[in-house]
Amino acid sequence: MQKTDKIFVKLGERSYPIIIGKDLFKDLQEIISKLGSFSRIIAISDSNVSKYYLKKIREGFTKHNTKYNEIVLPSGEKTKSFAILEVLLEKILGMKIDRKTLILCVGGGVIGDLVGLASSLLLRGLNFIQIPTSLLAQVDSSVGGKTAINSKHGKNLIGTFFQPLAVIISLETLKTLEKRQIIAGYAEILKYSFIMDKKFFFWLHKNGKKVISLDYKCCLEAIKNSCKIKSKIVKIDEKEKGIREILNFGHTFGHAIESFNNYSKKINHGESIFIGMVLALKFSVYLGICKLEVLQKLTNHLEELNIPYK
Amino acid sequence: MQKTDKIFVKLGERSYPIIIGKDLFKDLQEIISKLGSFSRIIAISDSNVSKYYLKKIREGFTKHNTKYNEIVLPSGEKTKSFAILEVLLEKILGMKIDRKTLILCVGGGVIGDLVGLASSLLLRGLNFIQIPTSLLAQVDSSVGGKTAINSKHGKNLIGTFFQPLAVIISLETLKTLEKRQIIAGYAEILKYSFIMDKKFFFWLHKNGKKVISLDYKCCLEAIKNSCKIKSKIVKIDEKEKGIREILNFGHTFGHAIESFNNYSKKINHGESIFIGMVLALKFSVYLGICKLEVLQKLTNHLEELNIPYK
Repeated sequence: MQKTDKIFVKLGERSYPIIIGKDLFKDLQEIISKLGSFSRIIAISDSNVSKYYLKKIREGFTKHNTKYNEIVLPSGEKTKSFAILEVLLEKILGMKIDRKTLILCVGGGVIGDLVGLASSLLLRGLNFIQIPTSLLAQVDSSVGGKTAINSKHGKNLIGTFFQPLAVIISLETLKTLEKRQIIAGYAEILKYSFIMDKKFFFWLHKNGKKVISLDYKCCLEAIKNSCKIKSKIVKIDEKEKGIREILNFGHTFGHAIESFNNYSKKINHGESIFIGMVLALKFSVYLGICKLEVLQKLTNHLEELNIPYK
Repeated sequence: MQKTDKIFVKLGERSYPIIIGKDLFKDLQEIISKLGSFSRIIAISDSNVSKYYLKKIREGFTKHNTKYNEIVLPSGEKTKSFAILEVLLEKILGMKIDRKTLILCVGGGVIGDLVGLASSLLLRGLNFIQIPTSLLAQVDSSVGGKTAINSKHGKNLIGTFFQPLAVIISLETLKTLEKRQIIAGYAEILKYSFIMDKKFFFWLHKNGKKVISLDYKCCLEAIKNSCKIKSKIVKIDEKEKGIREILNFGHTFGHAIESFNNYSKKINHGESIFIGMVLALKFSVYLGICKLEVLQKLTNHLEELNIPYK
């Protein structure tokens, strides 16, 4: 079995590990067998991601005669809807599940948010494992237990706080992503460094280019640090009643930009967060609560990486 | 303000009071103002119950210039559906809510289960207060934080564990119920005594008739004892991983009977629980794990109250 790194999200009886490594899909059955014993495994993915990983996952479990099902959903933000949630729940309830059933969410943020929500609702809460396959999901949405679908009144307005049994990050998944998606994930990594960890920011200043070009060691380091910072904040404020709001740095302006563009492909989440962080700092400088040089550090870094922020 | 009794459900940071009294609707604004400060109150009820209580509730809040909305849903088990959940969520999200919005669930088990679920999903959890108006909801479904809707695969298969901010029981609500509904609620009361409290069972043996004929003091005593027993069990096992299953005494056979009758009005939940409890004990006597005299105590009691159990 591949060597893995572990980070623990400490939330009392809801604590769980983030397991990071590479080529973990073929070892998934073994990794999961150490987390508990399950009556049935249901792997859920989307039409973009499923072709890369479901075969390996399926082979691992069926080899061990585990009861195993798969569900493939349409890809894209529109999947985070009430209609698809209903179809998904009824489909899973038709599979003779019980409280020992385990759900695997294999995909990016959309699959993680939707399937996490479904898991929290089935029999009032089934165990589920996040297996994020985009950089954005690996460093952000898969960790911390926020689940959601969209309402016609706005994004993520319907959801639960529901912690996974584990998060499993297999780094070779990054190779299937477009450069634009990598940079989108980098927005959240940069955010963590900026809100919590000066040393990490300087490290990124030196190694950011390597992260974006998927140097394995640098990606591992950046993802580990991001997950550590996020889990530290979630530990203090699981349900976002205070400090967890710091994770929204750049998101107030960012969401406004996304919303203004009707969440179109013209600008993605990460791209609007870069602009959002710069705007938040500009506004803070204007209010006199932030030094100009802090803003400059951020814009210098973005310029060096050729990341647009205007 | 009317005098009230209080029982506390002790669940750490999710602890809450059950407030019991009579004629509490006119004092609701005052009672609730002691529980926190809220940006908006949304009272949700069904077409059967709303006509009795919403006017009093509305007057209390609007007199104090509180932002206040009402939603009236169709009555009956079919309301616990995905379709109505979606309509309800979108309607509430259209009301400019924030995290300080408070939801009031005014009705029986159907409203409590559905609106409790909606509250747990809105902005990942809004404060809500259960105001149960049927005896069954007062002693059972409103306490303990189980929320649910029905799936086409079975009842209550989709839901959350989500504790209310408080439960408020105003006993004059019982006067609007049919005798058959009172007796249905009595099934759960009898269940509590049988699983946990011999003294309470003997008290019921003496005072059961008075409870059913709505003697105020006896109803108060029976409801208080029931809520105490339920909250004791929920405290030990909030998420039904062990002892909480004891609350299902009579429900395995009971649910089978209800299901066999397609949940028709021919036999209601409480009526099938009476039969279910007798069948569970008969089966236990047959297995040699229960004395015949225990079964006889139950059947004698039911006979004295003219409650059918065959």
